[in-house]
Amino acid sequence: MVQKLFDMLEWHNVHTPLFLSTWLLAIILCKIFFHHNHKIASKFPESALLIVLGLIVGFIVDQIWLLDVYMHPDLFFLYLLPPIALDAGYFLPNSAFFSNFWTIILYAVAGTIFNILTIGGTIWMFESWYDHHLGILDIMLFSTLISAVDPVAVLSVFEEIHVNQLLYICVFGESLLNDAVTIVLYHSFIGMVKIGPANIMITDFLMAFLSFLMVSMGGVLIGLVFVCITAIMTKLSVVVPVVQPLLCLVLPFLSYLIAESVHLSGILAIVTCGLLMKPYIAGNLNEQSLTTVRYFLKTITSSSEAIIFVFLGMSTFSKRHIWDILFTTITVIACILWRFVGVYLFTWIANKKRVSKIGYLDQFIMGYGGLRGAICYGLVMTLDEKIIPTKDMLVTTTVVVIVITVFVQGTTIKPLVKLLGVKTQEPAAKSLAQQIVDHSRDDMMTGIEAIVGIRGSNYWRHSITEFNNKYIQPVLMRKPRTRGRKLLEQYTTLTGEEQKRKLLQSFRV
Amino acid sequence: MVQKLFDMLEWHNVHTPLFLSTWLLAIILCKIFFHHNHKIASKFPESALLIVLGLIVGFIVDQIWLLDVYMHPDLFFLYLLPPIALDAGYFLPNSAFFSNFWTIILYAVAGTIFNILTIGGTIWMFESWYDHHLGILDIMLFSTLISAVDPVAVLSVFEEIHVNQLLYICVFGESLLNDAVTIVLYHSFIGMVKIGPANIMITDFLMAFLSFLMVSMGGVLIGLVFVCITAIMTKLSVVVPVVQPLLCLVLPFLSYLIAESVHLSGILAIVTCGLLMKPYIAGNLNEQSLTTVRYFLKTITSSSEAIIFVFLGMSTFSKRHIWDILFTTITVIACILWRFVGVYLFTWIANKKRVSKIGYLDQFIMGYGGLRGAICYGLVMTLDEKIIPTKDMLVTTTVVVIVITVFVQGTTIKPLVKLLGVKTQEPAAKSLAQQIVDHSRDDMMTGIEAIVGIRGSNYWRHSITEFNNKYIQPVLMRKPRTRGRKLLEQYTTLTGEEQKRKLLQSFRV
Repeated sequence: MVQKLFDMLEWHNVHTPLFLSTWLLAIILCKIFFHHNHKIASKFPESALLIVLGLIVGFIVDQIWLLDVYMHPDLFFLYLLPPIALDAGYFLPNSAFFSNFWTIILYAVAGTIFNILTIGGTIWMFESWYDHHLGILDIMLFSTLISAVDPVAVLSVFEEIHVNQLLYICVFGESLLNDAVTIVLYHSFIGMVKIGPANIMITDFLMAFLSFLMVSMGGVLIGLVFVCITAIMTKLSVVVPVVQPLLCLVLPFLSYLIAESVHLSGILAIVTCGLLMKPYIAGNLNEQSLTTVRYFLKTITSSSEAIIFVFLGMSTFSKRHIWDILFTTITVIACILWRFVGVYLFTWIANKKRVSKIGYLDQFIMGYGGLRGAICYGLVMTLDEKIIPTKDMLVTTTVVVIVITVFVQGTTIKPLVKLLGVKTQEPAAKSLAQQIVDHSRDDMMTGIEAIVGIRGSNYWRHSITEFNNKYIQPVLMRKPRTRGRKLLEQYTTLTGEEQKRKLLQSFRV
Repeated sequence: MVQKLFDMLEWHNVHTPLFLSTWLLAIILCKIFFHHNHKIASKFPESALLIVLGLIVGFIVDQIWLLDVYMHPDLFFLYLLPPIALDAGYFLPNSAFFSNFWTIILYAVAGTIFNILTIGGTIWMFESWYDHHLGILDIMLFSTLISAVDPVAVLSVFEEIHVNQLLYICVFGESLLNDAVTIVLYHSFIGMVKIGPANIMITDFLMAFLSFLMVSMGGVLIGLVFVCITAIMTKLSVVVPVVQPLLCLVLPFLSYLIAESVHLSGILAIVTCGLLMKPYIAGNLNEQSLTTVRYFLKTITSSSEAIIFVFLGMSTFSKRHIWDILFTTITVIACILWRFVGVYLFTWIANKKRVSKIGYLDQFIMGYGGLRGAICYGLVMTLDEKIIPTKDMLVTTTVVVIVITVFVQGTTIKPLVKLLGVKTQEPAAKSLAQQIVDHSRDDMMTGIEAIVGIRGSNYWRHSITEFNNKYIQPVLMRKPRTRGRKLLEQYTTLTGEEQKRKLLQSFRV
């Protein structure tokens, strides 16, 4: 009878959203469980635990349903990566990033190319020993994708250990920007593999270089355009504030998609957008909208990261794995070795120009924190088996490299930081007095530079700030935030408790 | 050369998200534009304007690309409706809803069935005049789906005109619950049409009734289960507060999907979940999470509504339209006429039991506010052409009914409310003193009832509150909120400005 009752009703296709939301909830539940378990949570980074979870689920799925689970590259590149990149750009401390800009660029561009060449060279040296035949271009392609230090893995570890800001910004900034380098070179090598090694001319290398410039500059440019669009639209949307959070999330996502669709760097576009839209949307949004944007961004990012790591764990049980022990061993050693050499080499170069030098301890942690992660996995999964017949073996090796770096290095980095006594983070918020002193010092330095007749970093910072205040802010912002206003805001947006305390204090004085 | 550069890069399938987010942005942009244009915004409800936008876009698409745009029912029922229903449940004023519970049930169940029978009867009376042949079951099926007063359309109009809370809660509560009635009866009739009119026995009607009970009770039950799950999970998630907003959005969505997948009322499940989870999540979430949940819910709801109305407008230009002027005219007249009769009849019945009677003016606005909307459209689109050959004609008629009610009634209701002098909303927030007086009065009434020996509504309210405070809250909530605590919270969660003012005042006294 119940069957007949049911037959009178209709069936919607609810399986897809049902499956997805159940899965998401299961992952969230595990996250909550990990954090409740202090013993585990203090020893292992969350990323490692999520990979273990993926391993267990993957094993069960593999044994019971005989299913082969792997992450579709589109899922990763179109839906999971963009929020993470936006979050990274949005919460990147602007001033620290720009004051270490050239150092970061050195690590991200020169360092990554150095790694690609050295790792590729090392693998190629032992080419005759492997079970599988790999051409030089295949090896370079693989060494490109395996060289990408992963922002997701790095962030999840470095946020937990609270290192000092200089170290944090260098590692994190590098991992953000080297993605662009890796992805561009990866696509160039794919192109070369398609053409075939015999037909490659010297002009193709020139092409690759031009392509790299175009892709990165283009990405940044699209990001800049979308900063303006986001600012103007949020400025106009003050009459319907309820749409503001969506604007601040969808517009950067659109910058990523548009950049990708015209074959420019989506990551650079969305990071630029997140990095530079921050001051404008803070001025245009009401308090609730702003809290919603920030908090929801954190929420989706932490879910995306969790999903990626679980997928990584699950894919370890894939039936397609093909092992080549020697190849894998050499790759792992080369990755770790050349990471350290690269960091020491380029820090030596950077330190020549830097005022505040980067110490040996920080360099060691920087090298040790070169975790591989989802980007490598995503890139290796996008390989076409018709072009690269050894794809399955390369996937296996990539998963091994990721698991080893995330587990061994990710788990031991925290005790290592303590053991070596690496300087940990300074208190985040500057006091009001400190800020006023800093501002005055900057102004004074600008004055001294003007008198002496040099145009140093203070001159440029001053000019850019002036230009922004005079011409850009009035167009893009509802209530332009001058320096005095910012200080005032900071004072008034203290939490209720603090405000009460301060008010009471001011009455006592 | 640029072409060759491009060829070296790979192409992702970015079209789908690119198209969707562009489209979403365009709709948001139009919303912003409408609100900037005070002349238009003050005359027409937003829903009407969005339909016009859809009309224009539909016309262009139809003329240039010759495309036939219509909304897929799955898009509506699985993705656009759930957030709207959750929002409706979450922001429904609990106490007003429960104190008018039986009146709302009367309108929603008896009123809707009355409308279905009368509208169906009227259409059937003129059956021989139509161009198309329609069986009695087809007519009843159609009259069921056209009887649903739409919460989206009603909300978008009634929120703009700020009527008094009694009127608001009656119309809105009715439109929420009658969806359940409509959807269940709709599915029953579909079942009967499949069996064929000749084979229907009296037991099938009994079946339909049992099915109705099962579907609604089952939906409410699933909602209740998910209230507990949401409360417990948010309570546990205090260690990773960043996942809280996702929990509060995904869990109710899951209740909807699970209810739908076992053929129970998803709408009732998600409304129940939203209505009852409110106090528990308010106690378990930190301030930022709570703001994010509330604000983001409003954001996605307003977007979902906008998308639905634009789709409605666009589908007006569908090539599939088949006109039957007489059928359409009679349907429109019957819908409006029987709505008024129904409201007056059932208010007369309700007023017999009610202490605060519903006035004639309020009744008129209630009848006039019986807008049809997305639910009708979604239901008519789900019809199977093989079973109902006249589907296209019914779709046309439905679109006409929706457009007329939303345009004519939706646009004129605001001036009408002013003209007739309908009591508009009282100030929303009660003062602290008012609340204390109210609570004391409730307690006193409970005492009097106890002495006199009757178990009235005060007795039940008191018992439920006590049970909740003693047994349910300690399990589901991190820091149980007693009455005193609530008052304290209300006092301390004033905005910064107010707080400062109050503090200053207290110092002056």
